[in-house]
Amino acid sequence: MATTAPTAATLATLARVATATITTQLFKLGLRNTYLAGLRPMSAASRVVGEAVTLRCVPSREDLATFERITAPGYPQRSAIESLGPGQVLVVEGRGITEAAIGGDIYLTRMQVRGAAGCVVDGCVRDTGSLAAMDFPVYARSSASPPHLARHLAVDWNVPVGCCEVLVMPGDILVGDADGVVCIPRHLADEVAAWAAELDHLEAFVLERIRAGAALSGTYPPDAATRALYDAWRVGRG
Amino acid sequence: MATTAPTAATLATLARVATATITTQLFKLGLRNTYLAGLRPMSAASRVVGEAVTLRCVPSREDLATFERITAPGYPQRSAIESLGPGQVLVVEGRGITEAAIGGDIYLTRMQVRGAAGCVVDGCVRDTGSLAAMDFPVYARSSASPPHLARHLAVDWNVPVGCCEVLVMPGDILVGDADGVVCIPRHLADEVAAWAAELDHLEAFVLERIRAGAALSGTYPPDAATRALYDAWRVGRG
Amino acid sequence: MATTAPTAATLATLARVATATITTQLFKLGLRNTYLAGLRPMSAASRVVGEAVTLRCVPSREDLATFERITAPGYPQRSAIESLGPGQVLVVEGRGITEAAIGGDIYLTRMQVRGAAGCVVDGCVRDTGSLAAMDFPVYARSSASPPHLARHLAVDWNVPVGCCEVLVMPGDILVGDADGVVCIPRHLADEVAAWAAELDHLEAFVLERIRAGAALSGTYPPDAATRALYDAWRVGRG
Amino acid sequence: MATTAPTAATLATLARVATATITTQLFKLGLRNTYLAGLRPMSAASRVVGEAVTLRCVPSREDLATFERITAPGYPQRSAIESLGPGQVLVVEGRGITEAAIGGDIYLTRMQVRGAAGCVVDGCVRDTGSLAAMDFPVYARSSASPPHLARHLAVDWNVPVGCCEVLVMPGDILVGDADGVVCIPRHLADEVAAWAAELDHLEAFVLERIRAGAALSGTYPPDAATRALYDAWRVGRG
Amino acid sequence: MATTAPTAATLATLARVATATITTQLFKLGLRNTYLAGLRPMSAASRVVGEAVTLRCVPSREDLATFERITAPGYPQRSAIESLGPGQVLVVEGRGITEAAIGGDIYLTRMQVRGAAGCVVDGCVRDTGSLAAMDFPVYARSSASPPHLARHLAVDWNVPVGCCEVLVMPGDILVGDADGVVCIPRHLADEVAAWAAELDHLEAFVLERIRAGAALSGTYPPDAATRALYDAWRVGRG
Amino acid sequence: MATTAPTAATLATLARVATATITTQLFKLGLRNTYLAGLRPMSAASRVVGEAVTLRCVPSREDLATFERITAPGYPQRSAIESLGPGQVLVVEGRGITEAAIGGDIYLTRMQVRGAAGCVVDGCVRDTGSLAAMDFPVYARSSASPPHLARHLAVDWNVPVGCCEVLVMPGDILVGDADGVVCIPRHLADEVAAWAAELDHLEAFVLERIRAGAALSGTYPPDAATRALYDAWRVGRG
Repeated sequence: MATTAPTAATLATLARVATATITTQLFKLGLRNTYLAGLRPMSAASRVVGEAVTLRCVPSREDLATFERITAPGYPQRSAIESLGPGQVLVVEGRGITEAAIGGDIYLTRMQVRGAAGCVVDGCVRDTGSLAAMDFPVYARSSASPPHLARHLAVDWNVPVGCCEVLVMPGDILVGDADGVVCIPRHLADEVAAWAAELDHLEAFVLERIRAGAALSGTYPPDAATRALYDAWRVGRG
Repeated sequence: MATTAPTAATLATLARVATATITTQLFKLGLRNTYLAGLRPMSAASRVVGEAVTLRCVPSREDLATFERITAPGYPQRSAIESLGPGQVLVVEGRGITEAAIGGDIYLTRMQVRGAAGCVVDGCVRDTGSLAAMDFPVYARSSASPPHLARHLAVDWNVPVGCCEVLVMPGDILVGDADGVVCIPRHLADEVAAWAAELDHLEAFVLERIRAGAALSGTYPPDAATRALYDAWRVGRG
Repeated sequence: MATTAPTAATLATLARVATATITTQLFKLGLRNTYLAGLRPMSAASRVVGEAVTLRCVPSREDLATFERITAPGYPQRSAIESLGPGQVLVVEGRGITEAAIGGDIYLTRMQVRGAAGCVVDGCVRDTGSLAAMDFPVYARSSASPPHLARHLAVDWNVPVGCCEVLVMPGDILVGDADGVVCIPRHLADEVAAWAAELDHLEAFVLERIRAGAALSGTYPPDAATRALYDAWRVGRG
Repeated sequence: MATTAPTAATLATLARVATATITTQLFKLGLRNTYLAGLRPMSAASRVVGEAVTLRCVPSREDLATFERITAPGYPQRSAIESLGPGQVLVVEGRGITEAAIGGDIYLTRMQVRGAAGCVVDGCVRDTGSLAAMDFPVYARSSASPPHLARHLAVDWNVPVGCCEVLVMPGDILVGDADGVVCIPRHLADEVAAWAAELDHLEAFVLERIRAGAALSGTYPPDAATRALYDAWRVGRG
Repeated sequence: MATTAPTAATLATLARVATATITTQLFKLGLRNTYLAGLRPMSAASRVVGEAVTLRCVPSREDLATFERITAPGYPQRSAIESLGPGQVLVVEGRGITEAAIGGDIYLTRMQVRGAAGCVVDGCVRDTGSLAAMDFPVYARSSASPPHLARHLAVDWNVPVGCCEVLVMPGDILVGDADGVVCIPRHLADEVAAWAAELDHLEAFVLERIRAGAALSGTYPPDAATRALYDAWRVGRG
Repeated sequence: MATTAPTAATLATLARVATATITTQLFKLGLRNTYLAGLRPMSAASRVVGEAVTLRCVPSREDLATFERITAPGYPQRSAIESLGPGQVLVVEGRGITEAAIGGDIYLTRMQVRGAAGCVVDGCVRDTGSLAAMDFPVYARSSASPPHLARHLAVDWNVPVGCCEVLVMPGDILVGDADGVVCIPRHLADEVAAWAAELDHLEAFVLERIRAGAALSGTYPPDAATRALYDAWRVGRG
């Protein structure tokens, strides 16, 4: 299912729209399992948009998960990080483990220095105090002190992964805000962005009306009269 | 078990006392399962007192959970919201689901505009960023992006519901603070409020004594000497 | 396995090093299960170091868990608290229960007044609003309103306990930071502190290098060249 | 969504086809959440087909869940049981609770005597030893000794319910075999039965071929050649 | 709460009545948490009655859980087993762990040889194939291959323990049947047995009536007419 | 870590020894996480020994998990099955999912026809009734009706996988009995088999002694006297 990259306009749009809006659009397109439930922002940045580079971890075992192995050249965790470029998000299949971290401030700073857009982990990160001050988006289940090899062994990267029981293919578009993270299949990103931008405007207008005292009925979803008001309002904003 | 409404004085008292105190009193009355474990404040307001209006949701199914159905007049979620008045709290049987939201800022703003006292959800809400700034109490398990019909179908309102495996009857009194939310059976609200107010004062006095260096023994629970000191202290405060 | 107390220097060092570093050292020493997963700081203090005094709780039962019993002299919860002295941490085997609290601001203030170093609970605490302002380290799973006897009965203290499925022996050294809490077996504290202090310095240096644009390879872990740079940097800091 | 009852032929067919086949057909029709995961047969009968009569339970509370209430006329649990007729299955929203039973041999025997087709419980039953010998289909999560009011209060019947996080509407068709239980929306039962009967035959033929040494490729799913063989085989069986 | 032992008649009665009946009686006495949810019979015997001897295990740690330690004289697991006499049941606080066994056929055979009444484990046992043929009651969550020290360290015996989140005091009476295991506080055993025997007879009679076609109403619970029939029936059985 | 295959003698030995013995030996070799907790035999055969061929599944997604894709040549699930030869065990990374099956009697019969040694699934299988009669070892969490593509998409085979949070490398040796399944790293199989065979004999002797009334002390573990008796007993058996 080779597809071309989403346009720059798509990415710019997705950086503005809510994940609530995006999941609604994906749901209407028949995609019901795109939200990575259970993650929360771990740094000062709670907004991420980028293309997935994936990292796959399996359970650790004493004969294989040694410090020698995980620091040797070609260890997938390190290769994946050093491959990251602008606009890319590292997505880690961490199997939901909360007793060890996938990495901490050194690895995450390296990603930031390389220009990556963010990091999404179905598991934990460490150096929480340090991360809290970083202007680099990191989503994880929680924090944990132990090193990754206490529970994980990285065995591959840029393969399909499961993250919070959601499929993430390399190249899919990840979007995160304060509600959490959603994965948009790459071939749908342009379509979703176009719809979502419009819906986000509409919902902003609806919220304004509700604040002003309008009842739900007729306003949300909008009937013809509200639609007309919206169209006028929309024109006024370009 | 028809009962009259709690008095205004009761509600005013419950707005001041701690849920820790209330659950202790309910426990002494033989009610051991009144605390809605697992919820946390999702907005800027972390204090709620009000009368339960309930909403019941069941698992979603593709042939029934359509956008047409959930936006049609009479859909229970919308009816319940539009029924809310001052001093009422919407309590949603959300079955603990963390992969979809019961609603977001539009619905919650409508509740606020109608004068409702708050919203308690055994599940998730969305538009977290927007909620964080709202001065309207919302308790939920967490946030999630997907629309409610991804996992829920509302089928009834103002029926008995289970919320965090606690029974909530329509008209019961919900109280929430930073420790969480407790449900007081309507017929016990006056009795609980009277006791709780007194106990809260006593605990404030005890804390003052402990801070001043008193040992637990004799102070907490208070013996006769401490009781006498408390009575004097209490008089001084009216 | 009687051991002498860790030195004052060890405790001072452990107050500075990261739990991430400590768990890594314990892992290298063959201790793979020392991190108390699932806890988070509940007060304004998120840094704790001290010697474990343990408290053991079992499930509550109506014929035994009465207010008379839990307030009588010699109730283990009260005895343990009143035994605490400077540099000690109360560690509570709370079986992960999230529907009741082990204690609240009165008990925690008493610990603070006695000079204790902190409190670690595999369960919940209450009076969350009050705790949030306390400058006394408290780690727990979450907050809950109900009193401890709703789910717990304290039956012993200063016996080996399981906390978050980690063994804590009386006298073990607990260290907590924003990543969570780790238990260092008493007889290993001096050794771990010595190693950890050195590793913490090295990681600070590595982070500085990574921020400056160094690749992971050769920097983390450091090769001979980086080691030499580090040694020079280290000299400059004493 | 009023629909006519499935035909007698449909019910007869569904009594023969596998739930594996039925869930596959429902999946092809766009219904992805129809399997009641987590249940197992508790009696000597592991095959059930019938129309749902539902019973809704909420969490118990000491002031309401008394023996007087649950044995009074009109208590929904009793009304639902006494309403059951031939071809009906009682489906109980038991919220997955494993610490109390919804009922035991007395209630289940009453259902059997009334000619009901079976009972499906998202929770537990009791009198396991006695049930094991009954020729009446009962599916549950497990067995438990305590009476239902220890955790449950029945509050309504023949309303939509959630069972194992699957929606069951009154009148839907439940089918169970050794793999578990599936809920077929009433309006789809005829369509599903027609497809499923055919698929079940095909799979029996395929299994025969695989046993005889055929490779998966070309056999499952069948290519044109295998289809032709199947058509011939099918003719021979009527 | 020192109490005399239950009478021999009590134990004989409890060996006949259902745990369903016992939990109902305990519930009426105000004891709501006495059922050890999650256990199942692992041997050929599914009926146990006896007095609790308890064993307490905490999480294992590499520096303490060595084969030397667990095989040395005085290791609590071995002391507890060698203390068992006729009519006693070993109850193990296994913290619900399913990745290691508390023991296998050697330990369980030793208990049997000593005349013990059975073994109840909140965790796993091993040598499942061998156990299945043993005529000695063993209740556990499941089976697991690894040795106990992979996850457990025994640290004490005949202290209060939590088993399946139920309190078991040394000397309490454990009763198990196919529905599971219940713990009767020692001081209530005579009272519970007397009531339960009568209720068991009544339920046997009721079941007979229901089988014969009686409706629930008037039969269960019995009204005066049914009671009279029961009294007559009862007389006929002695 | 290329290693030669275990010898035929090793495999023959492992077919006789208990998984309890094997996990104990692996534990002594420093491998603490080798037991696949949570699985149970689903067929008439509860004894398996063979070399792992692995299959990796990720979460399903509506745009990719189509019937066309999963039946096309080269779909990894089908390729893996058609690659199986004598002495091989298919090990499926099923992420513990209990709402869909990895496969049923057609796929499992194909494995059997190809001479495979068995199948181990961290998830479910279907056609339970049919499997129960098969003389082919199948271990899984449970049974479930829905087709695999309802929750799974197979994406690779013969890569390292996690199964019940245990690492399984292609070529590792899986052994299963009534206690469950253990994974022996390929390079340790000969060593483990040699030790395990000896230990199994010793434990059989010990059990004989315990049955005859010997106390645990001196017998288990054996002291010098018991060792001498064992040596004599052992000689008598060859």
